[in-house]
Amino acid sequence: MNTFGRNFRCTTFGESHGTALGVVVDGCPPGIELEETDIQAYLDRRRPGKSPLESPRNEADRVEILSGVFLGKTTGAPIALLVCNRDVRSADYDALQDVFRPGHADYTYLAKYGVRDHRGGGRSSGRETLSRVAAGAVAMLCLRRFGIGIRGRILEIHGRSAPEEMEREIRAAQKAGDSVGGIVEVVAEGCPPGLGDPVFGKLDAAIAAAMMGIGAVKGVEIGEGFRAARLFGSENNDAISREGFASNHAGGILGGISTGAEIVVRIAVKPTPSIGKPQRTVDTAGREQEIVIQGRHDPCIAPRIVPVAECMLALVILDSLLEQEKYRSFVR
Amino acid sequence: MNTFGRNFRCTTFGESHGTALGVVVDGCPPGIELEETDIQAYLDRRRPGKSPLESPRNEADRVEILSGVFLGKTTGAPIALLVCNRDVRSADYDALQDVFRPGHADYTYLAKYGVRDHRGGGRSSGRETLSRVAAGAVAMLCLRRFGIGIRGRILEIHGRSAPEEMEREIRAAQKAGDSVGGIVEVVAEGCPPGLGDPVFGKLDAAIAAAMMGIGAVKGVEIGEGFRAARLFGSENNDAISREGFASNHAGGILGGISTGAEIVVRIAVKPTPSIGKPQRTVDTAGREQEIVIQGRHDPCIAPRIVPVAECMLALVILDSLLEQEKYRSFVR
Amino acid sequence: MNTFGRNFRCTTFGESHGTALGVVVDGCPPGIELEETDIQAYLDRRRPGKSPLESPRNEADRVEILSGVFLGKTTGAPIALLVCNRDVRSADYDALQDVFRPGHADYTYLAKYGVRDHRGGGRSSGRETLSRVAAGAVAMLCLRRFGIGIRGRILEIHGRSAPEEMEREIRAAQKAGDSVGGIVEVVAEGCPPGLGDPVFGKLDAAIAAAMMGIGAVKGVEIGEGFRAARLFGSENNDAISREGFASNHAGGILGGISTGAEIVVRIAVKPTPSIGKPQRTVDTAGREQEIVIQGRHDPCIAPRIVPVAECMLALVILDSLLEQEKYRSFVR
Amino acid sequence: MNTFGRNFRCTTFGESHGTALGVVVDGCPPGIELEETDIQAYLDRRRPGKSPLESPRNEADRVEILSGVFLGKTTGAPIALLVCNRDVRSADYDALQDVFRPGHADYTYLAKYGVRDHRGGGRSSGRETLSRVAAGAVAMLCLRRFGIGIRGRILEIHGRSAPEEMEREIRAAQKAGDSVGGIVEVVAEGCPPGLGDPVFGKLDAAIAAAMMGIGAVKGVEIGEGFRAARLFGSENNDAISREGFASNHAGGILGGISTGAEIVVRIAVKPTPSIGKPQRTVDTAGREQEIVIQGRHDPCIAPRIVPVAECMLALVILDSLLEQEKYRSFVR
Repeated sequence: MNTFGRNFRCTTFGESHGTALGVVVDGCPPGIELEETDIQAYLDRRRPGKSPLESPRNEADRVEILSGVFLGKTTGAPIALLVCNRDVRSADYDALQDVFRPGHADYTYLAKYGVRDHRGGGRSSGRETLSRVAAGAVAMLCLRRFGIGIRGRILEIHGRSAPEEMEREIRAAQKAGDSVGGIVEVVAEGCPPGLGDPVFGKLDAAIAAAMMGIGAVKGVEIGEGFRAARLFGSENNDAISREGFASNHAGGILGGISTGAEIVVRIAVKPTPSIGKPQRTVDTAGREQEIVIQGRHDPCIAPRIVPVAECMLALVILDSLLEQEKYRSFVR
Repeated sequence: MNTFGRNFRCTTFGESHGTALGVVVDGCPPGIELEETDIQAYLDRRRPGKSPLESPRNEADRVEILSGVFLGKTTGAPIALLVCNRDVRSADYDALQDVFRPGHADYTYLAKYGVRDHRGGGRSSGRETLSRVAAGAVAMLCLRRFGIGIRGRILEIHGRSAPEEMEREIRAAQKAGDSVGGIVEVVAEGCPPGLGDPVFGKLDAAIAAAMMGIGAVKGVEIGEGFRAARLFGSENNDAISREGFASNHAGGILGGISTGAEIVVRIAVKPTPSIGKPQRTVDTAGREQEIVIQGRHDPCIAPRIVPVAECMLALVILDSLLEQEKYRSFVR
Repeated sequence: MNTFGRNFRCTTFGESHGTALGVVVDGCPPGIELEETDIQAYLDRRRPGKSPLESPRNEADRVEILSGVFLGKTTGAPIALLVCNRDVRSADYDALQDVFRPGHADYTYLAKYGVRDHRGGGRSSGRETLSRVAAGAVAMLCLRRFGIGIRGRILEIHGRSAPEEMEREIRAAQKAGDSVGGIVEVVAEGCPPGLGDPVFGKLDAAIAAAMMGIGAVKGVEIGEGFRAARLFGSENNDAISREGFASNHAGGILGGISTGAEIVVRIAVKPTPSIGKPQRTVDTAGREQEIVIQGRHDPCIAPRIVPVAECMLALVILDSLLEQEKYRSFVR
Repeated sequence: MNTFGRNFRCTTFGESHGTALGVVVDGCPPGIELEETDIQAYLDRRRPGKSPLESPRNEADRVEILSGVFLGKTTGAPIALLVCNRDVRSADYDALQDVFRPGHADYTYLAKYGVRDHRGGGRSSGRETLSRVAAGAVAMLCLRRFGIGIRGRILEIHGRSAPEEMEREIRAAQKAGDSVGGIVEVVAEGCPPGLGDPVFGKLDAAIAAAMMGIGAVKGVEIGEGFRAARLFGSENNDAISREGFASNHAGGILGGISTGAEIVVRIAVKPTPSIGKPQRTVDTAGREQEIVIQGRHDPCIAPRIVPVAECMLALVILDSLLEQEKYRSFVR
């Protein structure tokens, strides 16, 4: 299932070491001004190789609009976006052809499909998020029309929240041939109340799926999240005054529907599974092996997940917004 | 959107204080033995009034099978399940007709629909989960054919994990006219590897949506979850031996696909928003009010969420299983 | 797959000789005035036993609204509609338990599901259309808000188009223990231009599926339909003047999108397969049999299909209308 | 809505005079041998310019596989297929920029989207079917595994059914600056019984939608189709013997489910709306105009629709087959 969304539908394709990756965006409203540079700006944020703390894979990640835009504006037709792979070093993965990397999808893909594209993880690679970011960039432009903005940031790396400490943790892990996880927060401002659809189309449920569907994410919470489990009702409820909600423990969603307050989401990112330290595993013949992963990997993937999480939140919110608009002429 | 699932599709209906609640299960495989007592057993677990710590609403919650079963077996036709409401005291809610209860969906429903069924929360009531449990009971019977079992339990109430302490916290909150939250864990045993569909049909994403879509749930995590954000890769990766995974930090899912290990999910349940303590709010005319909620409420909803969470996990896993079966004759 | 529609979603359930039939309508806009009598009026039109030319099965077909309506108006919550079966004479079908009736779904259901509800065709019975008509009645009320009206009529019975000849054909068939087919036309007036979604959500494609999905329908055409295959382009094209289209060969749809002209649909209804004349068939053990079908059957089903076809067209058009509304705030 | 299918999902993109057209096929089973030449063979059949009776647009229509295939076999990942446009003469359409061509989607697209890509019809062009044929070619390869084959042919052109008469009709229309319609038949052999899903996923309903969704198609019939409306039940019912159905008036489908007999479909193709003869129309400012369409057009589109209809039937049948496989391990 490579399509995301009900109204603003994004279908992604492409493997880490294949010919190209891309996305077809179906359901984009007509009349939105869209140029390749708008999308490129987002792709550049998630691109590898921007700092010594990131994978040094050298990809320009140039996006091309193949369809759906005429005279600088969207037409309502599907928008196909394409990014060709350049710096493909599949040979790096030849040694891994028959062995299951711990923490990766190698074993599960083979169990599911009977075949596996071992080159850089194929479809399960983090590189696939490129397609999501390209689509998310288009969604961001649509949301702007409604005054909705989205911003993400890193809250923690390996349990530390001060910037210099976070960087230190990453460097230390990199040096040790290891990796670390972190926590990312994404916030949407300007959402109108009423987004989300009871009881199986709730906004928080859609956000949870979108976030948990990002590789390496193992937890999602909204508003107080897991902390709410330790509060009294009298502490966790948000009082309402004439000016609106007096607090935002709910994280902008009640009963699965947006309240108009900021939507606040936090996700737990696991440490990158590709590490230099030796690990115990088996090969496809069932023989036990020790594996040492070479190649170009991020010692902490959380920073590069920030734009991905922003884009996924944009996709969810735009999708809900379009769903909500359906009933306007009836309700008003 | 009141339908859950792609292959085993459950469409729920009914309000807390309406005529009846129910569910139509579409896509149930034929040939499954199914009687009303099978479903009743699950409904009895979530029924209110079983202990002094629960809402005393007195409902027998008798389920009736209206269709889809012939000579004691499912036929492949949609299974309609109906539960009539009996102990409806809508008058309890008359005082709340024009006022927004903090922490509830009152405001968001009115913002969305322009109208609101104020009697017991209408569709946003926890009573709606009755329909999910009825459908989940059918799913459990189907899963049993594949040797898959699901069990849930409470891990924490208001930060305490010892049973007598948990009960004490609930009693104390009840006495104070307040409420408390908790953490619930659900585990699925016996799942084959290969369930879940990259990249937008991942099993963990589907579980996250299913869990976050339960009212009062504000966080979801799989395996190590938020703890993974504080681990090294070398700690979090599960080594693989000839006997299978040596540990299960991943919680049974890698790359969005089941590994064959236990699937381990934890959810954060917020304290029940209905509390006796006075709260500040506004009415539909925008006037500020103090509200004291009368009526029959659970001081902690976490225990009654356990069967609901089990059932939602059953629905997700069965749905993935049916999806997976599609390709069997090609792959094998 | 017992759900119809993307935005106005109708999930039907129930067998011909089971406890009850019904439908859950999900996605109905809030604020629509709805009473049981509104729906009853449509059900009465398709009810059997209204004339000597129809099946004498004696069903009051009383509909009950179980949910989704509060204070006389829809709330946006799912609307469950229930009709209990009364005049069930399953014993009529005992002789048919092990034999495949020609022209019926007996063989295909058994081939598909391995089991079969032989009582009156179970789910494949024409009685299932009762659920569609109940849902369609709700759709008609919604369409009225937009000034859209739908009307159907019989064009032909057994090749004759004069009313008295049509009746004569039916009587003659009935007397001979045989049955006849016919052609039904359905027209929608007042549809705005712009309904329908290229390239796989075309309005004519959706209409074709809706119509062909009615039991006994074997052909569908829009506008000139099959006659267009025998015309020149210069004859079939509709010239456009300042007042709109000068003709309507297209039947109100161009490129899969409504033009604003009347939408004109014709369907071919096959002769009722249940006939009194002896027929050759086999039983479930593969033995050849001669079958003579007793019971209560319509010698021509076309007249009772008229309200069903109207309702299906209403469902398609409302669904497209809601889809279209999504983009209004962008386009305008 | 540019996605077709539930299990074998094809998302198409691209405009007639844009950069490229293509399709993403999601849900293709893994392990199918697939090369570009397999797809090219089908594209070559629908390519323009093969005879003097077709549009002389000179396109090589070279397809490139961008993803989803590894070592010559499908992997289960989405298969992106791309065809770049070469022979684009958009200037041909400049004169048509502000005028609505009768019989085309010009008016309806503008009414829907507020903008319109006037170059060659943009997305509503017959050239869009290229994407469907590319996807259909993949489906054909999958169907072959099950022994299912599909073949189409022209039955009639402008009311004539002898080959030399059909050709004469086309030549005469071409010479007169006019166009003619026709009837195409498509047949699927080797389908197992049991395909199709009651009551809204019927195989005949899916076929009807697929066929009516092809541009220029105005009617669809299965088996006897419209002729069934003129038959007695005793003539139209297919008797069943130990060897199977004695006749196939039903066209291989009963109750929406395949019987195992040949599936027989006929479609009515309207005359190409682009004609050289002067026509009355209006421009976007509402002024009446006479229009004479220049450019490269087929005087009869029916022959080029044959491979498209075959491919759409392949897509529907494969989709149903995958749906059916879901329940195998339960039913058997």
